[in-house]
Order: sequence, then C-alpha cells, then structure tokens
Amino acid sequence: MKKFVNQIDDILTESLRGFAAAHGDIVRLHESPTFVTRAGATAKGKVALISGGGTGHEPLHAGFVGAGMLNAACPGQVFTSPTPDQMLAAAEAVDGGSGVLFIVKNYSGDVMNFEMAAEMYGGKHASILINDDVAVEDSSFTTGRRGVAGTVIVEKIVGAAAEGGANLAACAALGERVNKATGSMGVALTSCTVPAAGNPTFDISDDEMEMGVGIHGEPGRRRVKLASADAIAEEIVGAVLGDLTPTRGETMLLHVNGFGGTPQMELYLMYHAAEKLCQDKGLKIARSLVGNYTTSLDMAGCSITLTRLDDEMMRLWDAPAHTAALRWGC
Amino acid sequence: MKKFVNQIDDILTESLRGFAAAHGDIVRLHESPTFVTRAGATAKGKVALISGGGTGHEPLHAGFVGAGMLNAACPGQVFTSPTPDQMLAAAEAVDGGSGVLFIVKNYSGDVMNFEMAAEMYGGKHASILINDDVAVEDSSFTTGRRGVAGTVIVEKIVGAAAEGGANLAACAALGERVNKATGSMGVALTSCTVPAAGNPTFDISDDEMEMGVGIHGEPGRRRVKLASADAIAEEIVGAVLGDLTPTRGETMLLHVNGFGGTPQMELYLMYHAAEKLCQDKGLKIARSLVGNYTTSLDMAGCSITLTRLDDEMMRLWDAPAHTAALRWGC
Repeated sequence: MKKFVNQIDDILTESLRGFAAAHGDIVRLHESPTFVTRAGATAKGKVALISGGGTGHEPLHAGFVGAGMLNAACPGQVFTSPTPDQMLAAAEAVDGGSGVLFIVKNYSGDVMNFEMAAEMYGGKHASILINDDVAVEDSSFTTGRRGVAGTVIVEKIVGAAAEGGANLAACAALGERVNKATGSMGVALTSCTVPAAGNPTFDISDDEMEMGVGIHGEPGRRRVKLASADAIAEEIVGAVLGDLTPTRGETMLLHVNGFGGTPQMELYLMYHAAEKLCQDKGLKIARSLVGNYTTSLDMAGCSITLTRLDDEMMRLWDAPAHTAALRWGC
Repeated sequence: MKKFVNQIDDILTESLRGFAAAHGDIVRLHESPTFVTRAGATAKGKVALISGGGTGHEPLHAGFVGAGMLNAACPGQVFTSPTPDQMLAAAEAVDGGSGVLFIVKNYSGDVMNFEMAAEMYGGKHASILINDDVAVEDSSFTTGRRGVAGTVIVEKIVGAAAEGGANLAACAALGERVNKATGSMGVALTSCTVPAAGNPTFDISDDEMEMGVGIHGEPGRRRVKLASADAIAEEIVGAVLGDLTPTRGETMLLHVNGFGGTPQMELYLMYHAAEKLCQDKGLKIARSLVGNYTTSLDMAGCSITLTRLDDEMMRLWDAPAHTAALRWGC
C-alpha cells in the first residue's frame, strides 16, 4: 500500500484537521464527537441540512459544508458509518430553530445510525434517503438501491432552497423529488485500497472493468472486458436513462464524477461521450459538473449521473454556493 | 493500460471538446490550431495573459482560463509542447491592444516554441519563465529548474493584476517577483502512464518513492524507501524553505498539489503535516490551496509549494477568479 500516512489510526483526524485549517473561512471542525460545521455554526432562520457517512469519498460530504449547501457533515472512519452521537451533536450544534433535515445515503449502517440519532434528537427534524444508483437492487451494504454521486445534486439543490427560506417539509419534499429525478451508474477500472486493509478491496484483471460498481468497490452488474469510452458511456447512459425515462426535449443536468484515480482529461472525454449520447436522444444538457466529487479513495473509474431538471431545480442549482469543493455565485 | 479512451489520437480533441462543452459559460475552444480562450474572447483594455504546455497536467492550463486569470491556454499533446502557431493564433485572438504576456513553464520545448511565437507575433508582448521546482538543476527536458505547481500561483496573482489594469511591464515584473518568491518540490509514489506509450513512464518498487520527481515523471533527487507523511513533508518543506529562506513571522501561501492519483484525504493529511512544520519555524500560513491543480496524469504523489506573500500578492490572490478549476469572489 502506497499512501501518505503516519499511523493508520490517525488518518481521519489528521486529514480533517488539515481540511479545517485549509478552509478555516468556511468550516469548523469539532472533535469528540467528530463533525464539521460551517464556520458560522448555527443555522439561524433556516432549516439546517446535515449529511454524513463513511469517509474515503472526499470531497463528499465535508467539502459541501458552507453557505448554500450543508450546515454540517458527520464523517465516519473510511467506508464506515458515523455513529449516532456524531449526528446528534451536529444537530444540536447547528439547529437554529427551523429544524434539521438529515440527508442519508442508502447504506444499512448509515440508515440505522441516522435513524437512531433522529430518535434521540429532541428538535424538529426530517430525513431523506438518497438511492440514485440504478446499477443493482440490494448490495453488500445496502437493501434497495445505493446512494452515490446524485447525493451532491440533492445537497446543492436542497441547500439552496433552505438558504432561500423553504421550511422543513418543503426541503424534505424537494429532496425526495430531486432524488427521484436523479440516476447514476459507475464503472471501475481498478480497485480502491482501504488504508486499514492495506490491500486492494477486489481483484480485477488488466483487461477487465466492473460495470455498475459501488463507491466502496461493491460488485456491480457484471465484470466485462475493458471497452472503449464511447461503449462504456453508452451502457451507463442507457441504464440511467432507462431508469429516468425522460421525454425528448427535456432539460437535464449531466454529472461525470471521478472515483479518485482517474485524470481529469479522461473525465472530460467521458463527458464528451455522454453528452453526445444524450443529445442524440433529443435531451438538452443544460447544466454540468465534471470532476472528483464522490470518490472511492484511489479507485480508477467514474460514474455518470443525470438529473431531470425542472425550472425550480435549475434556479436552485444556479444559486450561490460557497463550500470547499463547490463554489459559485458568491 | 486502463484508461477511458476511444482512439489514442483522439484523446486530446475529445477531452477538450468535453471541457469546452461543460464550461461553455467560461471558455471557448478553437481548433486548427488548438487553443482555449475565455468565452468573451478579446481582452479589451487589459493585458492578455496566455499560457500553455503539454497536456496531462489538467486542470493546468485550460482550467485557469477565465475572468481574473488567463485569457488563453495552448494545449499540446500529452507531455508535449504546443507549437508556435497555437500561441500565435491565441495571441492574435485575445490581444485587446494592451499587449500579451506569455507565461511559460521552464521546459526546453515550451521555451523554444513560445520564443518562436513571440518573434512571429507583431503585437506588443513580454514573456515570463516559471522555474519554481527546487528539486534539481537541469533535468530530462529542462536546462535550469523546472516550472511546476507554482505556475498556478503566478497565473492567479498576475491574472488579478492584469484584470485590475496593470500594464504589460508591471504584469511581467510582478510575475517574475511571484516566481522568485515561490518554491515547490514533489514526490511520486507511482508512475504515470502516458496513453501513447501504454506503459508506466518509470518503474518503482512497492516500497519506494521518487523524491523530487518532475511532473512528467522525470527523475528527482533520489529514490528512497517510502517514509511517513510527516517525514516526507519535512524533507519537502525543508528543501523549499531552504531555497526561499523566509524570515520568522513571514506570511506564506501553502499549496499542496495532487498529481492525479492521490485521494483528497491524503492531500489534506499532507497539508496538515506541512502547515505544522511551517508554524514550527514561525511562519504564518495566511492562504492555502489543496487539490489536483498541476497533475501528472494518474500519478500517485503530490507536491508542496510555498510562496512568500507580500500585501500586494495577498490582495491579488484574494481577488475574484471565475475559471473552470479555480473560482472565488464572483
């Protein structure tokens, strides 16, 4: 295993401290229990958005804490759910009286621990479950579909609505709506290596790829021979559009997400391939996002996410965001 | 070789088309010859900044085209200098009458081709040479020191000055000053793989690292056993500070740059280590930048850059930028 590390047990703490120091104008790190809030802390006069999950997917979620997106993020150990005390402490720290919306990716551990935190929390709250991965039903850590890169789309759009004064029920309903309008699928060319394991999560031959892979290296739909970028994009875009069934002329957001080990040059090449396919189907790509946003440590690969954008979602997507990893309009 | 690619010869074109499509509000792609300009094209009433070089270092340089930074970027093939006709066409496209500043990384091919373009160009122009890499004197493609991640710092600060109305001589002088105030050094844990070669650029054992590596995989100072993050940071920060010789209490910018294959979690961990070392030496880290900005395709590794910031540089660093890869304040 070749990584920048001192002691395995200190990776998360040292990394979070570096993150908080580099972005001290945007975030504040709380320890024991561990969570990240906006530097301003309390969400006065607005619904507080809290997400979280295992780390190794950076910048998700702490990179999206800041004006226009999350109020807090709860990072677990690598690929491990955060504990209920983290969500509870985060909720108590940021709730400004308008309630807390928990944004939860659909993994059994996350679901269970966020549910426990919600039960323990005295204040007004709601939860939404993200399950945008169209690749498989049920998986290593999931009942139903997995929550993957579509989470960023939900956090951005609902974050803008909350910033604009939408109440808790409206934020939750919007989040459900964006989640339903969003589909993703990924492909791995190599495995990631979890630091505590020290070895690749799965074996894969030099001429193979895992189509439909999960963001922890969970199995996808099938292990096949490496194909051209166009053929890969065709299979993924086909699967996502088959799930979303948009009509011709519809306005879409296209997000090509890198898993951490794939160069930007290849991600833009995949974007080019995916956009062409969408245009061929009469879809209008009105908004886009390309880069490493929901990663799997050092895995080479990418996912493609599409969202059926209505006017409200588009306006909220364009609203200002000021976070470590996503910043525009302010 | 595991990459997202159709035909090797089409990688650059397809990737640039994807980049231009994804960022159509910011940039415009010109083909035959190939260069990227701001969507608004001409630099009316300001000095036009043009950079370029081989690709494979994305987001450098095209990702820094936009308000507050570059007016144009000239991308060569992977790790290959762009040709003089590209720089010439870019200069003619963006010069708004206040002259053109060419920002050139110190590689023999880039230097020669930018010089030829400058000679062919009829308009007012100046050039600055970036050579921030303190690792080695002379290298595979370079006489003198290499230009690496410090280029981004120069492009940001001089870009802001040009946007603010500084004339050509002032922009060139500022660029030289930022370059002199900036030092970098990198370390590779793995090799990159150039698509046209199909195999890793260099062999390296599972327990080794290349200290002082160049951004094309050129040899560094020495091949040594993999060390702890703290020990790596200590050697790099020590080398850079030994070159820059700042005085106690001085204000610095700290940039931890990923080479493309290293997860963000590790980059922030390295930032944490580097910042501590600087603080121990009485330096004040006033500004920071962490992420993949000057990459080497899929290489695992990172570089650390430090800049001795004066008040003018800090003000210009904070000025608005609106590019694909670096965006704040607007």
